[in-house]
Amino acid sequence: MTDQRIHNFNAGPAAIPLKVLKEIQGSFLNFNGSGMSITEISHRSSYFDDVINDAVARVKRLLNLDDRFHVLFLQGGASLQFAMIPMNFLGEGDTADYVNTGTWSTKAIKEAQVQKKNHCVVASSEDKDFSYIPTDIQFSTDARYVHLTSNNTIKGTQFHDFPDTNGIPIVCDMSSDIFSRALDMEKFGMIYAGAQKNLGPSGTCMVILRQDMLDRANENLPTMLKYSTHASKNSMYNTPPCFGIYTIDLVLKWIEEMGGLEKMETYNMEKAALLYDFMEAGSFYRPTAEKSSKSLMNVTFRLPTVELEKQFIAQATQKGFGGLKGHRSVGGCRASIYNAATKESITALVQFMASFEKENK
Amino acid sequence: MTDQRIHNFNAGPAAIPLKVLKEIQGSFLNFNGSGMSITEISHRSSYFDDVINDAVARVKRLLNLDDRFHVLFLQGGASLQFAMIPMNFLGEGDTADYVNTGTWSTKAIKEAQVQKKNHCVVASSEDKDFSYIPTDIQFSTDARYVHLTSNNTIKGTQFHDFPDTNGIPIVCDMSSDIFSRALDMEKFGMIYAGAQKNLGPSGTCMVILRQDMLDRANENLPTMLKYSTHASKNSMYNTPPCFGIYTIDLVLKWIEEMGGLEKMETYNMEKAALLYDFMEAGSFYRPTAEKSSKSLMNVTFRLPTVELEKQFIAQATQKGFGGLKGHRSVGGCRASIYNAATKESITALVQFMASFEKENK
Repeated sequence: MTDQRIHNFNAGPAAIPLKVLKEIQGSFLNFNGSGMSITEISHRSSYFDDVINDAVARVKRLLNLDDRFHVLFLQGGASLQFAMIPMNFLGEGDTADYVNTGTWSTKAIKEAQVQKKNHCVVASSEDKDFSYIPTDIQFSTDARYVHLTSNNTIKGTQFHDFPDTNGIPIVCDMSSDIFSRALDMEKFGMIYAGAQKNLGPSGTCMVILRQDMLDRANENLPTMLKYSTHASKNSMYNTPPCFGIYTIDLVLKWIEEMGGLEKMETYNMEKAALLYDFMEAGSFYRPTAEKSSKSLMNVTFRLPTVELEKQFIAQATQKGFGGLKGHRSVGGCRASIYNAATKESITALVQFMASFEKENK
Repeated sequence: MTDQRIHNFNAGPAAIPLKVLKEIQGSFLNFNGSGMSITEISHRSSYFDDVINDAVARVKRLLNLDDRFHVLFLQGGASLQFAMIPMNFLGEGDTADYVNTGTWSTKAIKEAQVQKKNHCVVASSEDKDFSYIPTDIQFSTDARYVHLTSNNTIKGTQFHDFPDTNGIPIVCDMSSDIFSRALDMEKFGMIYAGAQKNLGPSGTCMVILRQDMLDRANENLPTMLKYSTHASKNSMYNTPPCFGIYTIDLVLKWIEEMGGLEKMETYNMEKAALLYDFMEAGSFYRPTAEKSSKSLMNVTFRLPTVELEKQFIAQATQKGFGGLKGHRSVGGCRASIYNAATKESITALVQFMASFEKENK
């Protein structure tokens, strides 16, 4: 129990900018002079139209999207997208390429398999326990799309450059690094991201979809599972997750106030360097990702022993550093430093790590 | 623009008890001494386990559910359930019965059609513009389930008794009247409800599912579209809509504090009577639902002319009564008086209606 806010290194749901939280709190009983909470407002009202349209406009500005792109707010997380992507984009005889960089890619591949859709795993880093991002990939010439996971939250790896796919549109799960850096959208047919890492609360999934992907999509599907349903109704075929979209809009506003994606990228590089440089200067903390593939969002590392890791996490928790336990499937430690993690929090963590090392070396 | 809270008669998203909103607001920066907002907490933490387990326990207490029932919190609203129900429960050669009582039933039926699942519309009130609830229905003897929509938000009709289906499990969309009254679950194989009317914010769909329905469900489906996925993981196969579940938990706590479902039912009957009795005593306001089928949740009515309806809604809005416009597909007026609508709000509305009638008769 604490009456102070902690340094939040959760992998997701994760830290949200304090400014955003305070704005939500301040207007929670009366949103924008409506006399209602944002949670009580009709999604068919002008109040909510303003929210969702503002969020879409901010996404378009941040990514320099032209009119080919739809910005959608869906439900079911990235996990439902794993199923919707092959369902919508692979017809009879079509095939897709997948790159397997860990747990989330593996799950995406499984959902193509379950639906008996043709697909090819053209590269994988499973040979080295997903500790790196494959390069020099040979893509199929006839793939409808190439599926990538831009950042692996569990193993702490990240694509720093996106591969040349010979014009085949990339469909990319960016759940854990969307809006963390500048992005050239020309290669992408679709990007998608569960909100709960870099965007806002869990329960909303952002999908950015290019019109030519929609033009070729299967239509004979359940209504809620067709992208065309949501694209034609501005994400309001049915009641959308209003509170999530509202929070995302405020987070996007905060990103614009921070100076946009180039500035965010610089800030994120500085933040990650604080941790990686400190660890690489010694040998007590050992980053698990290969150097060329290390993530700017999820810094995964080990200590000399599992026992020390337990002590480290326990003491860190006591001192107000939360979420440092590695994913339950791999163990170890992980500091998730998404956009909303502050340099102050990371500096404090590095200081704690240094003192823990001193005491336990 | 108002600095006061209005009387909220929205059809959904709708009013949430003020006590619940204030609790959310008060702890929004630091939930339960965690040092984090509820929106920043890991769904794999004990903090969130406590929330979801508390919500499940409250649902079980309120409905006297035994261990056969799973309580799930899913995404995609009732609209995704329309597709998942036939997908999960209708195998090769199976069939289901549907009762068509309006827009939402029609949509549910369409999703069985799209998937080319055998189904039979055994009753419909379309002949009288869905102004009543069909009775004396002949159900198929071999149906896997009977699908009903317990309350029609648009036409203001409601099942007051559920039909005898000869033991065939009822699958019921209760989006707009769940927890508004006592319920004998013995007839039901599954009930489901989008949260945004009687439960909390939009973006969470509660599903209560009996084990024997699961036992017979199709398994060869995309992971996120199988009920078994969610039932086996306590709704946490992937990141659930944490803020929604948290709010629902607080709303359920409020219902228990109000005295449970019998008390809620009495309160709702008193509330609805205030409006119906007033309207039926005169002829200026004309309820659209047949008397035997009128909803305790959505009171739909017309005024003598469309012009008067416009004036009525405009003046009401100015005086702090929100959400009185009928659904865009039917026009007219509607006061949605879910659990959280207070008797004080309804009394004030009736007073306003009386004075408007006096001035415009």
